[in-house]
Amino acid sequence: MSSVKAYAAQSETSGVHPHAIKRRALRPDDVAIEIDYCGVCHTDIHFAENDWGGTMYPVVPGHEIIGRVTAVGENVSGHAVGDRVGVGCIVDSCRTCEPCQHGLEQYCEAGMISTYNGIDRYDASVTYGGYSEAVVVHQDFVLRIPDKLDPATAAPILCAGITTYSPLRHFGVKAGHKVGVIGMGGLGHMGVKFAKALGAEVTIFTRSEAKRAEAKAQGANHVVISTDKAQMKAVRGSFDFLLDTVPVAHDLNPYLGCLKLDGTHILVGLLEPVDPPVMAGALVRKRRVLTGSLIGGIPETQEVLDFCAEHGIECDVEMLDIRNINDAYARMKKGDVKYRFVIDMKSLKAA
Amino acid sequence: MSSVKAYAAQSETSGVHPHAIKRRALRPDDVAIEIDYCGVCHTDIHFAENDWGGTMYPVVPGHEIIGRVTAVGENVSGHAVGDRVGVGCIVDSCRTCEPCQHGLEQYCEAGMISTYNGIDRYDASVTYGGYSEAVVVHQDFVLRIPDKLDPATAAPILCAGITTYSPLRHFGVKAGHKVGVIGMGGLGHMGVKFAKALGAEVTIFTRSEAKRAEAKAQGANHVVISTDKAQMKAVRGSFDFLLDTVPVAHDLNPYLGCLKLDGTHILVGLLEPVDPPVMAGALVRKRRVLTGSLIGGIPETQEVLDFCAEHGIECDVEMLDIRNINDAYARMKKGDVKYRFVIDMKSLKAA
Repeated sequence: MSSVKAYAAQSETSGVHPHAIKRRALRPDDVAIEIDYCGVCHTDIHFAENDWGGTMYPVVPGHEIIGRVTAVGENVSGHAVGDRVGVGCIVDSCRTCEPCQHGLEQYCEAGMISTYNGIDRYDASVTYGGYSEAVVVHQDFVLRIPDKLDPATAAPILCAGITTYSPLRHFGVKAGHKVGVIGMGGLGHMGVKFAKALGAEVTIFTRSEAKRAEAKAQGANHVVISTDKAQMKAVRGSFDFLLDTVPVAHDLNPYLGCLKLDGTHILVGLLEPVDPPVMAGALVRKRRVLTGSLIGGIPETQEVLDFCAEHGIECDVEMLDIRNINDAYARMKKGDVKYRFVIDMKSLKAA
Repeated sequence: MSSVKAYAAQSETSGVHPHAIKRRALRPDDVAIEIDYCGVCHTDIHFAENDWGGTMYPVVPGHEIIGRVTAVGENVSGHAVGDRVGVGCIVDSCRTCEPCQHGLEQYCEAGMISTYNGIDRYDASVTYGGYSEAVVVHQDFVLRIPDKLDPATAAPILCAGITTYSPLRHFGVKAGHKVGVIGMGGLGHMGVKFAKALGAEVTIFTRSEAKRAEAKAQGANHVVISTDKAQMKAVRGSFDFLLDTVPVAHDLNPYLGCLKLDGTHILVGLLEPVDPPVMAGALVRKRRVLTGSLIGGIPETQEVLDFCAEHGIECDVEMLDIRNINDAYARMKKGDVKYRFVIDMKSLKAA
């Protein structure tokens, strides 16, 4: 599938042009949204290219959606035509399990319904994401976008933002804490902003001395070159939290050694085996914690949008014409983007 | 070193008979203790046989010591001649680092001083443990043994007990929680008693159907045969905590799957690499926690002794004549003890 890419995938694989993807008719609880911007997440590439094996074509990726309400169903109360709204990674869930009842729809026991490549609970249709002119979503999964936010730079808050904000909040990061952020991509650079806004002293871990200036420009208080043993040794036992955004297997042991007693290493990028294996003794001898976190629920996604508006936090984005999506994917695979592509959906009309 | 065993190790390796091991002269803060009982921990075997490479011979193992005070230094206030006292795994620490100031001497940043095979902070002498007639310990590291406790069955509380009690308390196990205990040895059987006393519903995981009756007899509410995939599947996503007492590498992934959202897997037996590797996705997709815990500090060791007295908890022990220590080690290696050997030190006088 390596030659089949997102936008292209819709037409090349199936013969369906994106303009032909029909959105469902408005149900009583639905909000119809005209899309202005959509962020490009690495997950989009995995689905477009069927890396995880479950892609249902035609696929319309995109789960960092910003738009305006164009119509609402008769039961909709919280959103009105013309409102600036957003849709993130989740468009439905069972609503009844314990995680759902606590606003943790991302951990729904029946399985959350993904914004794209999900199966609708009512008519079993496949869900289509944000690389599109429009989307129709149940009102409970539509977010309010504060006026203070620039809608283009706000888009990635809906995935890259909430993914890093949620664990920092859940595990209680606050002033006085030392937080290390591992990786400097879409997730990492948002993690730095949030950890700083929460009052922590922030260190970026990066592999190359050449990235030191860039890391400092991200606003980190300190930079540690992770391939330099002397630098790693100098910070042994000093961190309360490590936010690990690296999406491929890497050795956690040098990082675990950087944690204090009771320190917490949070995985938000990796889903594969932790290889090489972690040393159990590194956990036991300092009661350290290795954990992970998955995006965030709807209430917390609203919270992070409001938090960004309050603290003037925006994602660093590169605007993209959708006709260049395949080039953008190629650049993302090389890590060549600072730090998130956002599709300007006006370009779709021109396509 | 496999033919050199603990008690024997003192004389065979070095030519020093245990009766010839001199205890230090009483310092102003010291308590001299005549030892009545000493539990036998698997760590004793590792040191006697130099499995970890750092053994200084002659070694006198034993860190589950129960005895009576025979003399006190001029500064000693909390202990008096004749008192029933105990000594666990720690006989000193720096006293000034943050963990020490919070009663977490086991995590002392300068390194705790072990009851045996440690280096005394004042005269650099090697510390000797409880397979002995007497021991001299700083008053701050001497525990009070409540009158209600049988001194023989209380001995293993000082290591096996505190090692399992401390993480259950630290991570907040209480009524309503479902706790799984993995492994049914010295640590595991104490973990079951503590988790039950704290109000939790307790499941023992064991590898063999033949051990079901024994597991039930331990007081577990439920038993799961971990090698039976159907039984493991039936408890998927149902535990708040897993207390993992297995001291050798094993696959954690089937156990992680048994944890709920935010569930915690606590390693207390393993120090080596977690091999096969854990799946990061198993942590990320349910925000599960993998952690570890090391024995416990002095205040919490006193707390667990008092807790055992209050709740009528004692270790299941097999009394041992010290002349049979090598046979006991051989049996422990086969898992053939229910569940802790305790040396009756009167047998040393006969040796």
